Amino acid sequence: MPELRRDPITKSWSIIATERAKRPESSLTKNFISGDEITYDPACFFCEGNEHATPSEVLAYRDKDNFHDTPGWNIRVVPNKFAALNLNEDFHVNQENPIKVNGYARGVAEVLIESPHHTRNLALQSIDHISCVLMAYKDRYLSLAHETTIKYISIFRNNGQQAGASLVHPHSQIIATPIIPVNISNELNGANDYYESTGRCVYCDIVKTELKDRSRIIFENKNFIAFAPYASRTPFETWIMPKFHNSKYQDLDNIQLHELAEIWKAALYKIYAGLENPPYNYFIHTSPIQKKVDNYYHWHMELVPKLTIAAGFELGTGMYINIAIPEDCADYLRNIEVK
Amino acid sequence: MPELRRDPITKSWSIIATERAKRPESSLTKNFISGDEITYDPACFFCEGNEHATPSEVLAYRDKDNFHDTPGWNIRVVPNKFAALNLNEDFHVNQENPIKVNGYARGVAEVLIESPHHTRNLALQSIDHISCVLMAYKDRYLSLAHETTIKYISIFRNNGQQAGASLVHPHSQIIATPIIPVNISNELNGANDYYESTGRCVYCDIVKTELKDRSRIIFENKNFIAFAPYASRTPFETWIMPKFHNSKYQDLDNIQLHELAEIWKAALYKIYAGLENPPYNYFIHTSPIQKKVDNYYHWHMELVPKLTIAAGFELGTGMYINIAIPEDCADYLRNIEVK
Repeated sequence: MPELRRDPITKSWSIIATERAKRPESSLTKNFISGDEITYDPACFFCEGNEHATPSEVLAYRDKDNFHDTPGWNIRVVPNKFAALNLNEDFHVNQENPIKVNGYARGVAEVLIESPHHTRNLALQSIDHISCVLMAYKDRYLSLAHETTIKYISIFRNNGQQAGASLVHPHSQIIATPIIPVNISNELNGANDYYESTGRCVYCDIVKTELKDRSRIIFENKNFIAFAPYASRTPFETWIMPKFHNSKYQDLDNIQLHELAEIWKAALYKIYAGLENPPYNYFIHTSPIQKKVDNYYHWHMELVPKLTIAAGFELGTGMYINIAIPEDCADYLRNIEVK
Repeated sequence: MPELRRDPITKSWSIIATERAKRPESSLTKNFISGDEITYDPACFFCEGNEHATPSEVLAYRDKDNFHDTPGWNIRVVPNKFAALNLNEDFHVNQENPIKVNGYARGVAEVLIESPHHTRNLALQSIDHISCVLMAYKDRYLSLAHETTIKYISIFRNNGQQAGASLVHPHSQIIATPIIPVNISNELNGANDYYESTGRCVYCDIVKTELKDRSRIIFENKNFIAFAPYASRTPFETWIMPKFHNSKYQDLDNIQLHELAEIWKAALYKIYAGLENPPYNYFIHTSPIQKKVDNYYHWHMELVPKLTIAAGFELGTGMYINIAIPEDCADYLRNIEVK
């Protein structure tokens, strides 16, 4: 029987179209096959040895104490050459005509190069290496939080051309904006409503429900769960959430980061191996910079594989028709061994 | 200078990335080229002569008074064979656990076959024919509004495979849901806020601003405008709006429908000819069925070409980075002659 399910935070609904569903992995386009591994591409801005081709780095993890913008790094963060925002202008909202409210796009856009290797997929990196990527995310949250005009820092990753990655070399992106984006406001409002009516964190209640039900759990370790959200918008949507209550990703300590890297690797690897390296997007949702949301907000990561196309219904309504059952997707991924 | 612009209704922001923008039509993927015209495909469920292959029609416009589900029609509406919703179940929201709120997907899913011709793009149909399509939209709104459990009727169109059209034969879709979708709630809330603080309809104020500025107008006739919205999310986003205040699409009379068909044709044709038949989605936003929103809501149509990919930033934040300037897009489309 087709079913409507409501996201407990934003209250938006998904249609779980069970009548259309086959085995989740059977009916989907798998059109992204990784080719042979290439260590170095002379034309790639992000490859080791081509450091001069990017703007000067703002962060790098190096084995030795060698020079800025030279080879010898594991992870490197540089300003985006084609930045949609910059810090050169004041952000002043012009509200003279309520129909034409605007402001200069003050902000920051950076690229986090995840490895010197030209094609090595993040899912195939070691837990230690992924731990360094997650540490670099934290370092950029902490550094950019000093910019007083920044209200929100968004960290995300596009995997594959069909998910919007314009360059092959594996990278994440960081965009800091002078406003709190609408999806974050919606989550904050939903979580605050829940907190005001129950005295509890909605995300903590999700963790509790998932640990009790177990049918949507994909991977679990001491402090984190990876699971298929109850009202999944797309086949194989996967969220990673700390079991402990905390609103800020950047509060993670080194031990927690290493444990997070284990579950991050598990989630990425299961998607990679089980669905043949599909295009996907992931993003971290964490507390805005200058807003006190510690009581009711709870950071998390959302990974959305792009196996189907969001069309006129999704765009027009904000509802999703999901042709796979979240419990089936979780079951499928749970059984894939991480290598 | 890159610019942030706010949607006056939903208050969501777009980044107009002028630093990335070239002439709008130059930098975009144009990967959808229409082949030779095919009148009839024996394997197509929607072609004339294959009426037995679809569920029995719920509406058809016929030249002669011939039988149901036989050839001789111009437009035909049939239940979707692969419906994600159906009317066989009661909609009862199960709220026992606030983390797992669900209900049966009671509703209606229909396909509106726009013509007997297998490949004729809606943009290339006559104004008279488009007028019949718009009339059929109205007829379905009116009929489905009698279903007491339906709260919202969504009518939309996917053009091209990359925009989610799974069948070549030109068609629109109708999905009626037992809840008001989140994007509609957001518009209703935004429009109501504006009305309460100003006493005016925000959409009427948009029309007034656009008619005064003129830089974003694409086409205009006595009662309607087609324009690039100020905070456009994507290159060549186009909205059609009545100049007169009305919350319900289905209130249109025959003369208005014919005039609307003229501007509908103009918008579709300019996109088709100017951007080489790109993939796009359009959808009508109109009043929910059982809610009194006449004072502050104003129906309209939104057309969103799919020339770029919404990636991790857009998915995670709900903000859009638009690499084309809305005024440039409007200027480009304004100058394309409608044939």
